[in-house]
Amino acid sequence: MPELSPSLIQSLGDLLGERLSTSLTLREQHGRGEAHHAAVFPDAVAFAETTSEVSEIVRLCAAEGVPVIAFGAGTSLEGHLTAVNGGVSIDLSRMSTITRISSEDLDCTVEAGVTREQLNIYLRDMGLFFPIDPGANASIGGMAATRASGTNAVRYGTMRENVLGLTVVLPTGQIIRTGGRARKSSAGYDLTRLFVGSEGTLGIITEITLRLYGIPETISAALCSFENVEQAVASAIQVVQLGIPVARMELMDRGLIRAVNAYSGLDLEIEDTLAFEFHGSPAGVQEQVDMVSAIVEEHGGKDFEWANAPEERNRLWKARHNAFYAVVSQRPNAKGWSSDVCVPVSQLSNCILKTRELLKDCSVPAAILGHVGDGNYHVVFAVDPGNAEELGEVAAINKKMVQYALSVGGTSTGEHGVGTGKIAYLREEHGDAVDLMALIKHAVDPAGIMNPGKILPK
Amino acid sequence: MPELSPSLIQSLGDLLGERLSTSLTLREQHGRGEAHHAAVFPDAVAFAETTSEVSEIVRLCAAEGVPVIAFGAGTSLEGHLTAVNGGVSIDLSRMSTITRISSEDLDCTVEAGVTREQLNIYLRDMGLFFPIDPGANASIGGMAATRASGTNAVRYGTMRENVLGLTVVLPTGQIIRTGGRARKSSAGYDLTRLFVGSEGTLGIITEITLRLYGIPETISAALCSFENVEQAVASAIQVVQLGIPVARMELMDRGLIRAVNAYSGLDLEIEDTLAFEFHGSPAGVQEQVDMVSAIVEEHGGKDFEWANAPEERNRLWKARHNAFYAVVSQRPNAKGWSSDVCVPVSQLSNCILKTRELLKDCSVPAAILGHVGDGNYHVVFAVDPGNAEELGEVAAINKKMVQYALSVGGTSTGEHGVGTGKIAYLREEHGDAVDLMALIKHAVDPAGIMNPGKILPK
Repeated sequence: MPELSPSLIQSLGDLLGERLSTSLTLREQHGRGEAHHAAVFPDAVAFAETTSEVSEIVRLCAAEGVPVIAFGAGTSLEGHLTAVNGGVSIDLSRMSTITRISSEDLDCTVEAGVTREQLNIYLRDMGLFFPIDPGANASIGGMAATRASGTNAVRYGTMRENVLGLTVVLPTGQIIRTGGRARKSSAGYDLTRLFVGSEGTLGIITEITLRLYGIPETISAALCSFENVEQAVASAIQVVQLGIPVARMELMDRGLIRAVNAYSGLDLEIEDTLAFEFHGSPAGVQEQVDMVSAIVEEHGGKDFEWANAPEERNRLWKARHNAFYAVVSQRPNAKGWSSDVCVPVSQLSNCILKTRELLKDCSVPAAILGHVGDGNYHVVFAVDPGNAEELGEVAAINKKMVQYALSVGGTSTGEHGVGTGKIAYLREEHGDAVDLMALIKHAVDPAGIMNPGKILPK
Repeated sequence: MPELSPSLIQSLGDLLGERLSTSLTLREQHGRGEAHHAAVFPDAVAFAETTSEVSEIVRLCAAEGVPVIAFGAGTSLEGHLTAVNGGVSIDLSRMSTITRISSEDLDCTVEAGVTREQLNIYLRDMGLFFPIDPGANASIGGMAATRASGTNAVRYGTMRENVLGLTVVLPTGQIIRTGGRARKSSAGYDLTRLFVGSEGTLGIITEITLRLYGIPETISAALCSFENVEQAVASAIQVVQLGIPVARMELMDRGLIRAVNAYSGLDLEIEDTLAFEFHGSPAGVQEQVDMVSAIVEEHGGKDFEWANAPEERNRLWKARHNAFYAVVSQRPNAKGWSSDVCVPVSQLSNCILKTRELLKDCSVPAAILGHVGDGNYHVVFAVDPGNAEELGEVAAINKKMVQYALSVGGTSTGEHGVGTGKIAYLREEHGDAVDLMALIKHAVDPAGIMNPGKILPK
């Protein structure tokens, strides 16, 4: 691992003062996300406060061929933050200004370190919200970089659909702006979508222009429990196929409910469950509820349990967002390993059935959850990161899940990204298109300093 | 202009037989779109029937550095088809197979030459439709290549949101597949979105996987006339800002209505008009209608005139889709010049007001129309393509429109693409990001054989 030259340390120190650190604690914290991937420390951590500072840091590192890794809230699940070739972690969490909001145009511009909860608290009084909600309180920059989604994607789309434009620092230090504020454009290559999901391997996203939405007049949430996961999934598939515009439709198997109850102090019935949220006018919501009720009844679902008071609803979704932590907390000193595949909805039943078979003899705690309206689901495993046998067992299950998803036209990751964790599947999924990705990577970042070892196989 | 070598002609002829042509008529027809841009003839036209034939044609041309230009339905409006460096026009119109439809997953795969009308006729009996509808009966490949949209984009998005995956022939002749059938994915660079809107300059799209939608239970269409365009636009802006999910909301100024009446044999009232379409359940549509009625009334709109019978509705939208031809037909031997800008909705009134000022002294027939729900509008001019002074006059108006749109955060093209017509504005819109586009272009197509002279300034 290359260490930083004294001259680079000096220049970065001149630029950042105490905002440059080589402390072991900070380096350890910046060399990992929230999941099982072992930390690989960067050589230094640089806390940037402006886009031009990011540009200057990148320029200085580029001059010496030193890697740079963007760090937002540190909530990565696929090893995106591991400094596999060392280098400088550029921490953007202090770039947390909400720069501009237009309630007329339903858009805003934020710095990369703004978190989704921070943004939504800020927007609430304006009657607006930003729907994309991965489990963690991730940064908007990180969410753009991994093409994140969450529970609302079935209705509102993912970061792919909701980012209008970006400010990006290129590997040369050059600052560019992509996209714009118009709702649609045919003006040249879609650089915005190229950077969304590029995981810091092509440039560092420092500002994001987002679509916003008015808070719906009526919001209604309900839980429906089933005798088994198959019934729940069959119901979800039918809701999607009928085009009912549910805002959320989340699967939580009974294992997950048990973990969530314990972690979040709830007393949900320990059953395989679909959690719904409906957005719209009072009549529109009622209509959705009626249609969905009929579908779940037909598939053996029990009556809806309503959670309509805002505090009750917030408690439910907060608990759902904490599902990952809930599973992990079942076991002392465990780390979470969250699998993530997404398949055509017609294949969802098959896939989840196969996954349940794979889990039958699994030796570690595991629970199934998913944004089933999108065909996207996860298994969260609570693993002992020091136990190689256990990691091997989970890796084997994960591999079978991914390969089965690919065999039915799905993807190896619906929302967590490739990082280091899914690199092995990229060619199986995309074939020779991977060579084009590598060609673009090499053209944009010939020295390979932008978050090396992520997305692309070596 | 380079002519084709005898050996290339020979090899292409061996491959295609009579499907290779150097006839003047075919070359002229393939060297232009539907608008005012003067034709520049390719040296030959190759009718491909399969992706591997396209690959072979590209390979043969690449070996001699000969340009290739993809041709779908020939409905380009910005000079995309002009063979500025000669070369071979690859006509994909015979690749018109609808390969696969899944009504369970609401998606399909089609060859690039399938047209939007062909697809929708095919889908109708299955209760499905594909909403993206530029005015012309364009090919799906061409629509993907220009990131097209149309009247339904306010509700259903554009080609950007509705293409799930592509088969693409690269400049080397290599065939790749991008994207997939999952509704969302974080698996690597978004090559699908890179090719959508790349106008044949990075590769040739030969197959497209698309999202489909169920035909709504209730469809209702209505016209509302206003005393002036400003009232109509103010109404449209409010509909968007309140998030009412109208399926279509089209502005047609009185000049356009006059042209459309004459061309399509209608007797619409000669007024500045908004045309709406509402999709949903009976109750959902009624609710939208009530809300929109209240808004238009508040802004001085007259009562809705309904067009609810399917044949009446189809006639209305057919007439709207033919608006371009309607304006052009007002003048013998004229060609259409369709301007195209898209701005944040809050800026739409300003922009249209400025545009109307610019049109006051315009010497050629012109009419304003637009997908105002997206902030996207056009002026269609009927120009004499042989009259340089007239072309200069329209170019000057177009330039002012674009520059004003850019100054308020808009884009130089909402849906027609850059082609040759908007190249001059690309740097004004995107700044140094244009250099990154050029870098990608050069990396993917170092010899510059893919539709040269389009999108990027030389």
